[in-house]
Amino acid sequence: MKNDKEYLEHLRHSCAHLLAAAVMKLWPDTKRAIGPAIEDGFYFDFEFSKSISEKDFPKIEKTMREILKGWDGFERHELNAKEAKKEYPNNPFKHEMIDEFSEKGKKKVSFYKSGDYWDLCRGGHIKNPKQELQHFKLLSIAGAYWRGSEKNPMLTRIYGTCWPTKGELEKYLWQLEEAKKRDHRILGEKLEIFTFAEEIGAGLPLWLPHGTIIREELEKWAKETETKWGYQRVVTPHITKEQLYKISGHLPYYADDMYSPIDIEGEKYYLKPMNCPHHHMIYKNRIHSYRELPLRLTEYGQLYRFELSGALHGLMRVRGFCQNDAHIYVAEKDVVDEFVRVMDLHKYYYDKLGIKNFKVKLGLRDPKNLRKKYHGNDAMWKKAEKLTRAGLEKSGVEYEEDSGGAAHYGPKGDIIIQSVIGKEYAIGTVQVDLFMPERFDLKFTNEKGQQEKPAIIHRAPLGSHERMVGFLLEHFAGAFPVWLSPVQAVVLPISEKQNKYAKITFTFLKENDIRVELDDRNESIGKKIREAEMQKIPYMLIVGEKEVRAKSVAVRARNQKDLGTMKLEKFLEKIKHEIQARSQS
Amino acid sequence: MKNDKEYLEHLRHSCAHLLAAAVMKLWPDTKRAIGPAIEDGFYFDFEFSKSISEKDFPKIEKTMREILKGWDGFERHELNAKEAKKEYPNNPFKHEMIDEFSEKGKKKVSFYKSGDYWDLCRGGHIKNPKQELQHFKLLSIAGAYWRGSEKNPMLTRIYGTCWPTKGELEKYLWQLEEAKKRDHRILGEKLEIFTFAEEIGAGLPLWLPHGTIIREELEKWAKETETKWGYQRVVTPHITKEQLYKISGHLPYYADDMYSPIDIEGEKYYLKPMNCPHHHMIYKNRIHSYRELPLRLTEYGQLYRFELSGALHGLMRVRGFCQNDAHIYVAEKDVVDEFVRVMDLHKYYYDKLGIKNFKVKLGLRDPKNLRKKYHGNDAMWKKAEKLTRAGLEKSGVEYEEDSGGAAHYGPKGDIIIQSVIGKEYAIGTVQVDLFMPERFDLKFTNEKGQQEKPAIIHRAPLGSHERMVGFLLEHFAGAFPVWLSPVQAVVLPISEKQNKYAKITFTFLKENDIRVELDDRNESIGKKIREAEMQKIPYMLIVGEKEVRAKSVAVRARNQKDLGTMKLEKFLEKIKHEIQARSQS
Repeated sequence: MKNDKEYLEHLRHSCAHLLAAAVMKLWPDTKRAIGPAIEDGFYFDFEFSKSISEKDFPKIEKTMREILKGWDGFERHELNAKEAKKEYPNNPFKHEMIDEFSEKGKKKVSFYKSGDYWDLCRGGHIKNPKQELQHFKLLSIAGAYWRGSEKNPMLTRIYGTCWPTKGELEKYLWQLEEAKKRDHRILGEKLEIFTFAEEIGAGLPLWLPHGTIIREELEKWAKETETKWGYQRVVTPHITKEQLYKISGHLPYYADDMYSPIDIEGEKYYLKPMNCPHHHMIYKNRIHSYRELPLRLTEYGQLYRFELSGALHGLMRVRGFCQNDAHIYVAEKDVVDEFVRVMDLHKYYYDKLGIKNFKVKLGLRDPKNLRKKYHGNDAMWKKAEKLTRAGLEKSGVEYEEDSGGAAHYGPKGDIIIQSVIGKEYAIGTVQVDLFMPERFDLKFTNEKGQQEKPAIIHRAPLGSHERMVGFLLEHFAGAFPVWLSPVQAVVLPISEKQNKYAKITFTFLKENDIRVELDDRNESIGKKIREAEMQKIPYMLIVGEKEVRAKSVAVRARNQKDLGTMKLEKFLEKIKHEIQARSQS
Repeated sequence: MKNDKEYLEHLRHSCAHLLAAAVMKLWPDTKRAIGPAIEDGFYFDFEFSKSISEKDFPKIEKTMREILKGWDGFERHELNAKEAKKEYPNNPFKHEMIDEFSEKGKKKVSFYKSGDYWDLCRGGHIKNPKQELQHFKLLSIAGAYWRGSEKNPMLTRIYGTCWPTKGELEKYLWQLEEAKKRDHRILGEKLEIFTFAEEIGAGLPLWLPHGTIIREELEKWAKETETKWGYQRVVTPHITKEQLYKISGHLPYYADDMYSPIDIEGEKYYLKPMNCPHHHMIYKNRIHSYRELPLRLTEYGQLYRFELSGALHGLMRVRGFCQNDAHIYVAEKDVVDEFVRVMDLHKYYYDKLGIKNFKVKLGLRDPKNLRKKYHGNDAMWKKAEKLTRAGLEKSGVEYEEDSGGAAHYGPKGDIIIQSVIGKEYAIGTVQVDLFMPERFDLKFTNEKGQQEKPAIIHRAPLGSHERMVGFLLEHFAGAFPVWLSPVQAVVLPISEKQNKYAKITFTFLKENDIRVELDDRNESIGKKIREAEMQKIPYMLIVGEKEVRAKSVAVRARNQKDLGTMKLEKFLEKIKHEIQARSQS
């Protein structure tokens, strides 16, 4: 069975027809609007004459299955506007659409028929609905304005999904359930990772102490790793004169993503939307020899990009974020090798985090807009695309091409990672840039003593702290590996009699740099354990009479595993090892 | 001999008279303008009819000494405007000043006379110039517009200094010489610590790889130390809605120090000038019990404050900086103890950096402006002042009071540190704040189960990275202790024959986390050593035939000390120990 993008779209679009057929059969005076395929499923907008809810879904689904028995295919028919309108008495939505087709000069509009049901439709269906439309499910109901405008009437939208196989449907439904439980906004609040304040502003997270620990552990890891891989860290300012962004071409090409300027002594300054131009200025600060190349400048740099308030979503879409950025200045002849090295670094990071799948969506120029949206000449673009493809091929990373997804200065590889429940997120980008070296007049002295322009590779494998921590909250369902856990262990005395020993245990671990807490409240051990498990603390160290006598701790892992009693030094050794190795559990 | 501020001012003002007397004797057609005492010295502005330069200083100083012999004191005389003007034929500057006095309703102006010389002056002199004005020196010459406006004529300004004793004068001149050699802007460029770019903007430093290492080592130290001292780290956004600053009162009281707002979807957002309000919002994020107090939130937070471009100075005065900030929420009854703890932390930090002297300048309200510039009622201010003084007394830190130096919300202790050459810099502040808890409605549940308002202590012992690194560049003359050194050791093979062994040495140290470089250029060992010393690298590891055979290195410290030959492991142990202990040399 075909599983490509186009097939899935046809499948889901066909299923939207089926949904509408069932609705019309159940409630014949309903007015249909539109029903497209969307990512992972489909929807259909209706104007009902009665109120319906998710409770009606079983009835609708049952009707869908009954109707399906008589659907052998989609037949195409053509009608003129007058005939078409007759098919929809009292339906202003369809009439509006038919009028629009007429205005565009269309003499006929197409209808598609399956069984007894037919509907205005431009096409794109599967061949054998009876067989292929087996694996669907209605998911939710929502209000939606006709054509998205609040000036229009509010319709009722029914969302559903449909998959080629039962297994895929079930996996998707499980994913949906899991994603709800793992919602990073809910976990983030419960585990005190981050918060927002109305008085500070939407999309501007406040990182609480627990969240700050995770950010800093990630950054420490990046620093250690990147130092080993030959990167040099820099720090650049967050506001910058207009002039710099004119050189880089962010003005005017990126202006919609930038905030309004600040006036300082009559000059315009902008919050920086990208670190690149700043790193180029650092590169320019002195002359370079081929011996220093590849020169890799890295910064966890704070960026500000405009987002509509309606588009903001927890940590996943914010207005300010801190990016694991780097720019590598490299001789053109070495670009492919360095690109492969960059992809190896991606693999290392993702592997360590238990991210099993990642791929690159290679954004190319929009062929319809070559002049308007992009800098540079055709030869430069072709060379940059060729180098990127060669790098991707050589590194063996899965990739697909995306027309129109390029940056204004070159092809852009979006890195897509998949969480353990299979949801995909764009986390960073990798780019081969031959344009900015020209624009910033960057140079190095090559082996022959001549001045040469380096190429630049842009990369950000760990993305931003914001999106990465949001992703990891879902990926680990809040149960971070020990090295990332804000609290790594908690000491739980069974009764007050063990408080003194518990305190000694706590102090010993704290002095050995373990992030440990002591819960010596006068509560039952059962309650203390439940609360520690809610907080997803990796290790609970329970101390009763026996442990005090043996100078040991009873170790319980958060996944309900009893690891037995061990000497405190032994436990320290075990947890230290896990932290140092950045183990996944 | 008195050495207080007022006396020094009188001394220097008197010396300005003496300078003018000498100039008028040497070149009688010179026009005098004004000659005030300034910090550390004095100046006098003249309009010369001939060109003069620093080469004329010996002649002027000689004349000053001759004139001084006949100066027994300053006699006061009064003249009316007409008489006064006659004393200055053709001198528009003095005429302008005399006219201004008349306009203000003054019938008479005062003149002061010593020996044969007299001048318009409002007074403030020493008693026995002949004895007291012995220890002066002319320092430099500069152009200065009359009354600071470029619309006025350019005058010639002569700077000088004067001290009560020979020892003090000599120490000051040595300090000036040293400060020139240690100028952080020159060292910062030479050692590749930071740079500025015209295209990015004045006062917005770019931190180069070497400077970034120093910043990060300082921050790592602060993190380790503050974690041990019970602080919790947070991260807050750099832009924030107007509303927050209205609650905190930064708007309007601090508006002159803030940049113009950014517009986001019709709301005003400001670059944050202080971290305080953000930390208060984090405190407010959940309810607190007395058990959690003192609750210490810390952040190396990025701040933006307006400075005139003319006031900017290297890293010491910038427009954006990253501050070692913290806010401690503490029950009022525990404020003094916590304050003492905060001062202990200051002592720990400064001691470790070899800063021998520091003091607190306690800023109080300007008594003339109680209503206009400050929030809160009198009782609150008095209590805050009392707690601050009690904390300062109990901690035993040297302090002096400064009327008018308060923050808009409470008394403010400026921390003044002294570099090894005796120059003083304001590095941070310590404040007891009883106002913001009220304004932000902060609470905790006390022992009795009642709601209580905490007090807040603001503190920033390491100041900002910008000013601290600027200070340390001067303090250490660029020769940072090993733990702060961007490059900790360099391997120098004597000839090409040792390159292979040198590489092994280099790799071994690098893998053991030493910041090491390898200089295997085909240059003489003498040149390599000189260059490493210029770069102030703490250790040079010289390898020749002998060292290769013995698998050792000849260790040379940057202060020209030969530490002898040692096994590589031995050297690693030595340098590791120094790094871990954060030793001062």
